Amino acid sequence: MAALWSTISRVCTVTQGLRRYGSPAVAKMVMKSDPFEPDGPIVNTEIPGPMSRQLIAELDTIQNTKAVHFFVDYERSQGNYLADVDGNVLLDLYTQIASVPIGYNHPRLLNALTKEENRATFVNRPALGVYPPRDFNARLKNALLSVAPPGLNQVQTMACGACSVEHSQKAMFIAYQRRRRNGRPISKEEIQTCLEGKEPGCPNLSVLSFKNGLHGRTMGALGVTHAKWPLKLDFPVPDWPYASFPTLKYPLDQFIRENRIEENRCLEEVRERIHAWDKRSCPVVGIIVEPIQSEGGDNHATSYFFQGLQDIAKEYEIPLMMDEVQTGCGSTGKFWAHEHWNLKDSPDIVCFSKKMLTGGFFFKDHLRPEEGHRIFNTWLGDPSKLIFLEEVVNLIKEEGLLERVEDTGSYLLSGLCDIQEKYPGLLSRARGVGTYCSVDVKDAETRDTILYRLRHKGVNLGSCGISTIRFRPTLLLCRYHVDIFLDAFDSVIAEFDR
Amino acid sequence: MAALWSTISRVCTVTQGLRRYGSPAVAKMVMKSDPFEPDGPIVNTEIPGPMSRQLIAELDTIQNTKAVHFFVDYERSQGNYLADVDGNVLLDLYTQIASVPIGYNHPRLLNALTKEENRATFVNRPALGVYPPRDFNARLKNALLSVAPPGLNQVQTMACGACSVEHSQKAMFIAYQRRRRNGRPISKEEIQTCLEGKEPGCPNLSVLSFKNGLHGRTMGALGVTHAKWPLKLDFPVPDWPYASFPTLKYPLDQFIRENRIEENRCLEEVRERIHAWDKRSCPVVGIIVEPIQSEGGDNHATSYFFQGLQDIAKEYEIPLMMDEVQTGCGSTGKFWAHEHWNLKDSPDIVCFSKKMLTGGFFFKDHLRPEEGHRIFNTWLGDPSKLIFLEEVVNLIKEEGLLERVEDTGSYLLSGLCDIQEKYPGLLSRARGVGTYCSVDVKDAETRDTILYRLRHKGVNLGSCGISTIRFRPTLLLCRYHVDIFLDAFDSVIAEFDR
Repeated sequence: MAALWSTISRVCTVTQGLRRYGSPAVAKMVMKSDPFEPDGPIVNTEIPGPMSRQLIAELDTIQNTKAVHFFVDYERSQGNYLADVDGNVLLDLYTQIASVPIGYNHPRLLNALTKEENRATFVNRPALGVYPPRDFNARLKNALLSVAPPGLNQVQTMACGACSVEHSQKAMFIAYQRRRRNGRPISKEEIQTCLEGKEPGCPNLSVLSFKNGLHGRTMGALGVTHAKWPLKLDFPVPDWPYASFPTLKYPLDQFIRENRIEENRCLEEVRERIHAWDKRSCPVVGIIVEPIQSEGGDNHATSYFFQGLQDIAKEYEIPLMMDEVQTGCGSTGKFWAHEHWNLKDSPDIVCFSKKMLTGGFFFKDHLRPEEGHRIFNTWLGDPSKLIFLEEVVNLIKEEGLLERVEDTGSYLLSGLCDIQEKYPGLLSRARGVGTYCSVDVKDAETRDTILYRLRHKGVNLGSCGISTIRFRPTLLLCRYHVDIFLDAFDSVIAEFDR
Repeated sequence: MAALWSTISRVCTVTQGLRRYGSPAVAKMVMKSDPFEPDGPIVNTEIPGPMSRQLIAELDTIQNTKAVHFFVDYERSQGNYLADVDGNVLLDLYTQIASVPIGYNHPRLLNALTKEENRATFVNRPALGVYPPRDFNARLKNALLSVAPPGLNQVQTMACGACSVEHSQKAMFIAYQRRRRNGRPISKEEIQTCLEGKEPGCPNLSVLSFKNGLHGRTMGALGVTHAKWPLKLDFPVPDWPYASFPTLKYPLDQFIRENRIEENRCLEEVRERIHAWDKRSCPVVGIIVEPIQSEGGDNHATSYFFQGLQDIAKEYEIPLMMDEVQTGCGSTGKFWAHEHWNLKDSPDIVCFSKKMLTGGFFFKDHLRPEEGHRIFNTWLGDPSKLIFLEEVVNLIKEEGLLERVEDTGSYLLSGLCDIQEKYPGLLSRARGVGTYCSVDVKDAETRDTILYRLRHKGVNLGSCGISTIRFRPTLLLCRYHVDIFLDAFDSVIAEFDR
């Protein structure tokens, strides 16, 4: 793969890095970019091109392909650039729905893959809960506990995000019922009725979530999901309480009072719902929330809101769970997005997946089940993903990638704001933390057209919410990549303005 | 790893293979065994040994370890032999809860891992539903469709067994509601209410399952699970209908009439439950069943029962779904366990995981969703697992492993029956198909003691149900491995009889 790019490789020079901003710190960051990355995007065909279309048609005989954008040549993809099967090379600011931490074919990952001492971990997948591998404790420590939010000293790996949410919820249900039992042993009736799916063994309990939140597609995760109808329609999903998530007005500094009122309204709804579900004999055992509502439209709330939410959780003695599946692993400029809020105490559970390469969740001691086999399945994750994650975590630390994300992110956001200012009828609410940025377009159709045209200018991006464009680049994105995007974006937007 | 065993390696010779049975076909099978396997089990310490105990204590500061048996040295494990961290080497007849198809560190898998053309698949995990890799269609065809049950020409990959069950259920819910709509488009009310988790968008629907069945640990999968209380206790699991699964009397040929009555009783219960849940306005959209109830106690039913179950499903026009997560991939001597029953038609859905190395499900055309993003998540499985699965599937075909499983299995079962006959107060109901065998012990405590002592004679085995020992070896198990087990088993059982 390295050879492929060598003829067109371009080391991002200091000069290029200084194109817009000229501090030495920035220059240093820019120079750290992947030397094997292509020079820039290449677009030769419509996307999807003829080869992609042929492959999509073939795949469509095997499964529904309506969500497929195009087929990818992963061997030829490199760093921030995604190569498709028709020879097009796109700057990728969406990165497999926000799940690629350090770019395609990163040398550190390739090196980890080919190390002889790692082979057994790749070819022998253990039942981690019964026969853990010799180096499992070390892997948990190096890859996971070394980045655990303070106070969350327990961790459980899982295969994916939805399973992480489901088992986190189960940890909350178990802790709630244990408290209810108040030292009384589990009864025979509870054991018998639970196998029948009836009370008291399977009690009527709920988890409180937020409107426009999305936490996964298995039944328990769908119970706390309230965004995107294709996820929920036709499914017998539990009817659990949810409150409004703040809809902030932008720019934030001009709407401080309005936004405070809005956040107080939402917090009040949380209290109301907890009381209402208690009256319905379906008590709330915990609160689940995304630090930034991602699929639901990149909805942000302030520290005030999250601090207030934690106060409510503590008042009702229920855990506050952060779903950091999409926000975790550095893309907000801090390792965990919730670190931005100066919470008095860490959340009780933080679940992860995507950029973390493995699913799982951190949790506090009081959420640890007492019995065995309570939080369990055959694989409980995959230690080969921990090998890669350890490389990612080490790279983040060694290369100061959080600092880079912060710098690149502020550069991206200021560029977005500039363009938004030029086209106020078209773009609004440019927002973001780190490179976790987004901007709203006047309507969904226009947004989709913009994304389509951007792709043909060599930039791959994603959508969320009703009419939002979301940025989910790797942690290696530099200012000069942002320049490529901004140039393309500016010219696409200009076409609409004509 | 090869080097490690070379000094003690033993190619299983024809002579050894002929120890009990002498046909040339068997000799051929025996000779195919892994030449790098150790000579036999080695037990030097108590298991868990001092190193395992130390690592368990350390892991226990990070997560609950009550299900952990011992720590494993996967580098030193080979073929049918599992090496622990204390230098013990066990003949493994449990294989990571039935999830290792062709043994530890198989050269075919190591070779696939180190091939340069596979590297990009290992280090770049795609969002398969949006950006599938160039070779994805070929991988689906070679690794999955080439072993699909007849008529199930659609396949969807998933990360694990529970997700495969959940999304299979969703395919059934979608198909049921589509039929109810009868061509009417999805209404605005449905879209709005589904986001709230309320009817009509989230209708009251159920899936029928069986007592003692186990299908996974996420909420929808738990709705069809009725075995092992630690899985369900304290969780608000849906109250869905379940029928009795036949409890057959052994030996089968002596209880033909009684077993027929029992199976008819269970089939009648299925009808009753479908009617009862229809009256409760919670119609049954499909039936899920394991071909052999595994975790629930290795409960078998006859072809008559499954044919009858398919008749009922067809009569009520609901899909019959086979959960082949544990039974699939050859260990019954056929690739799919349900192939043993001469069903008039294939089941409508067959889900898999474990030995298949990837989760997923095959399904018939009529269960395919029309809209995009209905059966979806970020990763939708992991194509690097398809690389390994393709090797497994090819090996099964090239080496005639199903034939070997059938031979080894009948040898194992006849050996079990011999020992059972000697100790009728201790052992009963020896049963099995292929190497998917089991035997009941008089009580749980005795069973657990037997398993503990067997481990110290160098054989690792698993339990299921109330007091059952289950065999879940690799597809590479030979008669001489069975001899090692039978010798150990005989001597352990003899100790009890004293």
